[in-house]
Amino acid sequence: MRTVFALAMAAAIALPTHATAQDATIAEAAEQRAYPPLFAAEMAQAETFVEEMIAAGVIVPVPRDPGGGYTHEQHKRNYRAMLLAAQLYELTGEPRYFGFVREMLLEYAALYPTLGEHPARANQNVGRLFWQVLNDAMWQVHAIQAYEIIRDELPAAERERIDNDVFRRASHFLSVESAATFNLIHNHATWATAAVGMTGYVLDDEEMVRSALYGTAGPGEAGFIRQAELLFSPDGYYTEGPYYQRFAMLPFMVFAGAIERNQPELRIFEHRDGILLKALDTTIQLTYNGYFFPFNDAMRDKSLNTAELYEGVAIGYAVSGDPALLDIARFQNRTVISPAGLGMAEALSAGEAEPFRFRSMLFSDGPDGDQGAIAVLREGTGPNHMALVAKNASQGMGHGHFDKLSWQLYAMGEEVVTDYGAARFLNIEAKEGGRYLPENESWAKQTIAHNTLVVNEQSHFYGDLALAEAAWPTQDWFHVADGFQASAASIDSAYPNEGVAMERLLALVTVEGLAQPLALDVLRASSETPVQFDLPLHYAGHIMRLGFDLERYVDTRPVLGSGHGYQHIWEDGRAAPDEGESFMTWLLDGRFYTYRFVPQDGLEVILGESGANDPDFNLRREPVVIQRVMDSSDATFVSVLEPHGLYDGAAEQTVEGDSRIAALRHVEADEYDVILIETLAGETVAVAISWQNDPAASHRVTIESRELAWQGYAARFSLGD
Amino acid sequence: MRTVFALAMAAAIALPTHATAQDATIAEAAEQRAYPPLFAAEMAQAETFVEEMIAAGVIVPVPRDPGGGYTHEQHKRNYRAMLLAAQLYELTGEPRYFGFVREMLLEYAALYPTLGEHPARANQNVGRLFWQVLNDAMWQVHAIQAYEIIRDELPAAERERIDNDVFRRASHFLSVESAATFNLIHNHATWATAAVGMTGYVLDDEEMVRSALYGTAGPGEAGFIRQAELLFSPDGYYTEGPYYQRFAMLPFMVFAGAIERNQPELRIFEHRDGILLKALDTTIQLTYNGYFFPFNDAMRDKSLNTAELYEGVAIGYAVSGDPALLDIARFQNRTVISPAGLGMAEALSAGEAEPFRFRSMLFSDGPDGDQGAIAVLREGTGPNHMALVAKNASQGMGHGHFDKLSWQLYAMGEEVVTDYGAARFLNIEAKEGGRYLPENESWAKQTIAHNTLVVNEQSHFYGDLALAEAAWPTQDWFHVADGFQASAASIDSAYPNEGVAMERLLALVTVEGLAQPLALDVLRASSETPVQFDLPLHYAGHIMRLGFDLERYVDTRPVLGSGHGYQHIWEDGRAAPDEGESFMTWLLDGRFYTYRFVPQDGLEVILGESGANDPDFNLRREPVVIQRVMDSSDATFVSVLEPHGLYDGAAEQTVEGDSRIAALRHVEADEYDVILIETLAGETVAVAISWQNDPAASHRVTIESRELAWQGYAARFSLGD
Repeated sequence: MRTVFALAMAAAIALPTHATAQDATIAEAAEQRAYPPLFAAEMAQAETFVEEMIAAGVIVPVPRDPGGGYTHEQHKRNYRAMLLAAQLYELTGEPRYFGFVREMLLEYAALYPTLGEHPARANQNVGRLFWQVLNDAMWQVHAIQAYEIIRDELPAAERERIDNDVFRRASHFLSVESAATFNLIHNHATWATAAVGMTGYVLDDEEMVRSALYGTAGPGEAGFIRQAELLFSPDGYYTEGPYYQRFAMLPFMVFAGAIERNQPELRIFEHRDGILLKALDTTIQLTYNGYFFPFNDAMRDKSLNTAELYEGVAIGYAVSGDPALLDIARFQNRTVISPAGLGMAEALSAGEAEPFRFRSMLFSDGPDGDQGAIAVLREGTGPNHMALVAKNASQGMGHGHFDKLSWQLYAMGEEVVTDYGAARFLNIEAKEGGRYLPENESWAKQTIAHNTLVVNEQSHFYGDLALAEAAWPTQDWFHVADGFQASAASIDSAYPNEGVAMERLLALVTVEGLAQPLALDVLRASSETPVQFDLPLHYAGHIMRLGFDLERYVDTRPVLGSGHGYQHIWEDGRAAPDEGESFMTWLLDGRFYTYRFVPQDGLEVILGESGANDPDFNLRREPVVIQRVMDSSDATFVSVLEPHGLYDGAAEQTVEGDSRIAALRHVEADEYDVILIETLAGETVAVAISWQNDPAASHRVTIESRELAWQGYAARFSLGD
Repeated sequence: MRTVFALAMAAAIALPTHATAQDATIAEAAEQRAYPPLFAAEMAQAETFVEEMIAAGVIVPVPRDPGGGYTHEQHKRNYRAMLLAAQLYELTGEPRYFGFVREMLLEYAALYPTLGEHPARANQNVGRLFWQVLNDAMWQVHAIQAYEIIRDELPAAERERIDNDVFRRASHFLSVESAATFNLIHNHATWATAAVGMTGYVLDDEEMVRSALYGTAGPGEAGFIRQAELLFSPDGYYTEGPYYQRFAMLPFMVFAGAIERNQPELRIFEHRDGILLKALDTTIQLTYNGYFFPFNDAMRDKSLNTAELYEGVAIGYAVSGDPALLDIARFQNRTVISPAGLGMAEALSAGEAEPFRFRSMLFSDGPDGDQGAIAVLREGTGPNHMALVAKNASQGMGHGHFDKLSWQLYAMGEEVVTDYGAARFLNIEAKEGGRYLPENESWAKQTIAHNTLVVNEQSHFYGDLALAEAAWPTQDWFHVADGFQASAASIDSAYPNEGVAMERLLALVTVEGLAQPLALDVLRASSETPVQFDLPLHYAGHIMRLGFDLERYVDTRPVLGSGHGYQHIWEDGRAAPDEGESFMTWLLDGRFYTYRFVPQDGLEVILGESGANDPDFNLRREPVVIQRVMDSSDATFVSVLEPHGLYDGAAEQTVEGDSRIAALRHVEADEYDVILIETLAGETVAVAISWQNDPAASHRVTIESRELAWQGYAARFSLGD
C-alpha cells in the first residue's frame, strides 16, 4: 500500500519528538483504516462531498458572477473539493481522487491564462476568478495545498503546465499585480501572502517565498512576518475583533505550518514570543458558550464551530500538544483530514483532553499593546458562568464600532447585556445580496446602539473613522481577586469639540448572601461645556417590574431622535425616578435580572426599542433603557445589574422573582467615589474608588462613621450588617 | 429487611400477570438496592428534598397567605414531602421517614379542627388550609397516599386521631360542606372526588367512596364516574384543551389506580372503552417536541415534563404495559418513586421502550363527540417533523378562546404559525401575583389574536361566553393520505347578528420537487350584510422579503383599532398587492418560510405587531400579517405557507432563501374551488374542493382544458409541467 502522508506534509509541523510519535500513529491508523471516530466521521463527510463533485464532472466555468452567484459558488466548491480530494488520496491511495484533482487543475491551467479583470468587479481590489482579490487568494491557499499532494506524481509536462499557467500566474497576480493589497498590514494581505508563500515552497521558488514573508519590496514594512508583528497585540488580540480574528486565523496558521515544515530555522511558531499560538488561544478566549463576543461588525451566530478554527485548532495542537485544545475540538466535534487533524483526533480518542480554561484575562490592543484593551472578567465555569466583557480597545479599522468603554454581560448561559453586532444577513440574497445593510452604518455602528456614554446625541468621534482611528481608551486598571474583579478605563478624546472626559469602572462584586455576583458599573464624565449625557443599556428579556412610575406611550410611540442611531429608537416611556424607585426587573430564559441605578440629580429614564425608521425590516427589535442627564457639565452613573431567582415553567415554580437589594447608594467623598450596596438581609458591601492607578498610593475615607482604607485604584469592603 | 411495597399499593394496579412480574422485580431490586438509573435518580432527588424538610423541622403554620405566600407554599411543600417521605419509607424502611410523616400528620390533626374559612379567600370556593378549595383537595390527594403507607403501623390512638381530626374532617369539608364544587363536572371536582374517594378506601369508609364515585346525592349526574364520562370526548379529548387536560390527568389516573386496587370489579380502566388510557394517550398526542399545543388559556412553556404526567405515565404503563409510554418516560427523564414508577423504570432499563407514534389524528370534542374537534396533521417524524393543528373544537368553558377554525403550524422544530396562549406569568408576584393578566381578556382571548376570521373587528360570539358555549364548529372532513392530508370544518353561528357562515380547509400538500409539503389554507365566508373580513396570521420570524410594495409607517405607528384586541396591534404598514406580488418571506431559526396568498378583489394587507396599549409591558411583541376585505358579503382567502431552504450562520451558507413557487391561483368553477400551485421548476399541483362531505358524490370540473374528477370533499392532482 501507499505510504500515507509521505510527502512534505507528512513531515508534520510539530517539534521533533512530538512529530515522530504522530507519524507512527498516522501510518498505523491508515494501515488498519482504524481511524478515531472524529476523524472517520470527517473523512466520511469529505468522501460524500467529493464523490458528489466527481459525479457532477469537472466544472470550471468562465468567471462571471458576483458573490453568491453561480460561477462564484462553483469556484468556491472547486477549491474545497480539490483540497479534500487530495487529502483523501493521501489517506486512501484511490486513483479517482488523484485524477479529479489533476483534471481540475488542468482545466484551470486552460482557463487562467485567458482571464483578465473579473467582469463583476466590486471595488478597486478586483480578482481574476472572483469579483474581489481576497477570494482569489482564498482559492489559491486551498488549491496549492491540493497540488502539493499530487504534484510529484504528475507527468513532467502536466506539472510544468500547472506550475506555470496556474500557480505562477496566480502568484504574480496576487503579489506583483495586486501589490497594493499584498503589502498591506491587513487580513486580506495575510491570505495573499499565505497563497504566494505556500506556492513558493511547492514550486521551490525562493523569490515567491521571500516576497510572501517580507513583502514585494524586500524586508521592511510588509509581508507575513510583519503582519504577525503588527496585526496582533502582544496578547494575541486582533484589532478588528473576534469575528475577524477567527477569519484571519486560517491563513496565519496554515502558512505558518508550511513555514515550519520548509524553513524550520525560522522558528515561526516561536516568533514574537509565540504570538500565533497566543492568538489562537485568544480567539478561543473571546467566546461565551462557544459564541464569539459579537462586538464590532460581527455575525452573532458565529461560534467556534467554524471551518477556520477546525484547521487552526488542529495545527495549534500539532505544534503545541496542548491538551486543552482537544477540549475545543471535542466541543467542535469536527476536524480536518490532514495529518494534524488525525494526530489530534487520535489524542482525543486516547482521552488526553483537558478542560480549556476560560478565565479572567486582559487582552491589550495595538502592535505594542498600548492602544487600549479588551477586559474579560469571568466568575465560575461551565455553561452558566458569568462573564463581563469591557471593550476598551481601539477602533479596529473600518469594521469597528463607535463604542469606547462599552460592555456586555453574560449569565446563566445567556447574553443579558447585549451587543447588537452587525446589521447584516450574510449570504441572504433578499437582504442586499447578503452585504452589510444601510442600518449597519445608521444603527449598528453608532454609539447609542451600544452600552456606553453618548454626548449630545452624537456618536463617539462624531462617527468619523479617521478621528476614531487616531485615539483609543487607556486601560487604567485590571484586577482579579476572590469576590472582586474589575476593569477600569478612560478616554478624553471621544468628543474633542465638547472636551468630554470619561472613565468607567466595571466589576463583578460578590455580596454576602447573594448566590451570584453583581455587575457594578460606575461611569463618571465631565465636559468643558454643559451637554446632554445618555447612558444606554441594551438588554435581553421581558419587563417584569418597574420600580418607577413611567409616563407610558401606549398608543403613540415617539421616535427618540433624528440621527446617530437615535432615529431608530421607538420610545415606550419616560420617568424621573426617586431613590428606592430606580430599578427595573426583567425575565430572560427562566432567570430574573434587576438593573438598579442611583438617581443622580436631574436623572431621566427612557425606555425604548430598536426598529424605528427601518423601512425594510432590517433591524431586530430589542429593548433599551437609557439614563439621561441634561444640560450638565458632569455626571456620575452608578448602576448595578443583579441576576437572581428562577422561573421554572415546567414545575410552575418561581423563586426570588424580586431583587434582594434594599439600597444602592453613591457617596462622593473628596476625590473618591464610594458605592454602597445593601441587601434585604442586611448585609452591606462597599466599593471605594480612587480612580488612581498607583498601586502604592494609600487612600482613606470615612463613610457614615466607618473608615475605609485601601491602596490603589479601588477596593471592596464587607461592612456586615 | 422490610417487605418492600407490602401494603395495599404493592398489590399494584396492573392486570394480574403483569402485576406479578412487577412485584417480583420490585422486591428483588429493593433487596439489592439495585434500582434502575431513572428510579435511583428520582429517589436521590426525593431524599435530598425530604432530608431538607426533616432538617427544617415539622412546620405546619396557621393558614394566612394567598397563593404564592408563605403559608400557602409551606403547606404545598408539606404535602409533597409527606408523600415522598412515605414512599421512601416503603423503599428503605428508614424510621426517620416514618417518623416525619407521623409527626406532620399529628400536627395537622392538632391544627385542622381549629380551622374555619381561609382568611385570604379569593372567590366563592374558599378552602381551609388554602385560599381556594382546589388546593385543599390537592393537599389531600397527596396526604392520603402518604397516610395509606404508614397508617397500619401507627398506634391505634394516633391512627384514630389522624383518621378523625384530619381526613374525616377534610373529606366532610370537601364533599358535604363544598358540595357545590364536589358535584360539578369539572376538573376541580375531579381533585375533590379523588381526595375523598381515596380517603374512603384507606379509612374503609364506604359512604365516602360512594359519594366520590357517584356524587353526594347518589348515582346520577355527579361523581368521578360521571366526570370520566362527561369531561372527555369519546376520543379522550378534554374540552378545556391540552394545558388543562394535563392538569386533570393526575387525579383521574391516581384515583383510578386506587379504584383498581380496591374495587377491581369496577374495571375502571375499561370503563367507557378505556377512556382514561385513551385520555392519557391524547394528552401526549397534543404536543410538538414535547410541548403542549398552547391554545386556549395555556402557559406556553408547559411540556410533557410536568409532575402530573410523571405520575400519569407510570400508572398508565402499569395498567397497559404499553412500551410506547416508556418512550415518553425516556423523554421526561423523570418518574415517581411508587411501585408503578419502579416497574416502568425497570422496563425502560431493560430496553423495552418502543417509539411513541405521533400521528395524524382527529380528536372529537364533547361528551358524545359531536361538538367539533381538534384535527392534527403530521408529516414525517422526529424533532423536525411538520404538524398542522386545526382548532375546530367547542369553547372549552371559561378558559376557552374565541377562535373557531383557528390553526397553528409547526415545522423544523419550531412553532411557525403561532398561538399566543395565555397572557399570564405564572407565580410571578410582580405580574398581578401570577394570575391571569387583564391582557388575557383584552388580547389573548380575542379572535384577532388568533389565526382565524374576524368580522367587523369583533370577536367570535362578540366575546360573549354564554353565546360561545352554546355553539361549535362542525368537523366536515378529515383525510389522511400520502401527499395530501386535510381537515375541513365550518361554523355559521360565530356572528349571529351579521349571519356569517364560514368554512375552512387546511391541508398539508406535497408538491413534486419541493422537499417539504406546503400548508394550504382555503377559507371562504359569506355574510347576510356587507362586512369587513380580516384574516390574521401570527407568525414567528424576521421578515426577509416582501413581494409587495408596502406603505410603511416608519416614524409613527398607528394603532389598528379600538377594541376586541385591535387596540393592542401597532401597524407597520399597508399594501394592496397584485398577483405575483402577494407573498412575504421570513427567517426563523435557520429556515425560511414564505406566506403566499391570492389577491382577491379589494384585498388589503396589513403588517403589524402586538404590544400597543399595554401599559405594564404584559404582552410579548410578536408580528402579524392581516388579509383584509372591506364592505363585502363574501370572501375567499386562499393562502399557502411554504417552508424552504436553510441558513447556516456557522458555515456561512444559505440555500434556497427564496420561495420555489411561481404562482398560486384560485379558480372558482361552479360550486367548486380549485387551487393551482405552480413551482419555478414547472410542476403544477391542483387541489379541488367540492365542500361536500359525501364520499360517494362525484365531482368534475374543467380547468384550462384539463379535466379534474374526484369523489368526496376534496382531492389533490399532480398536473405535471
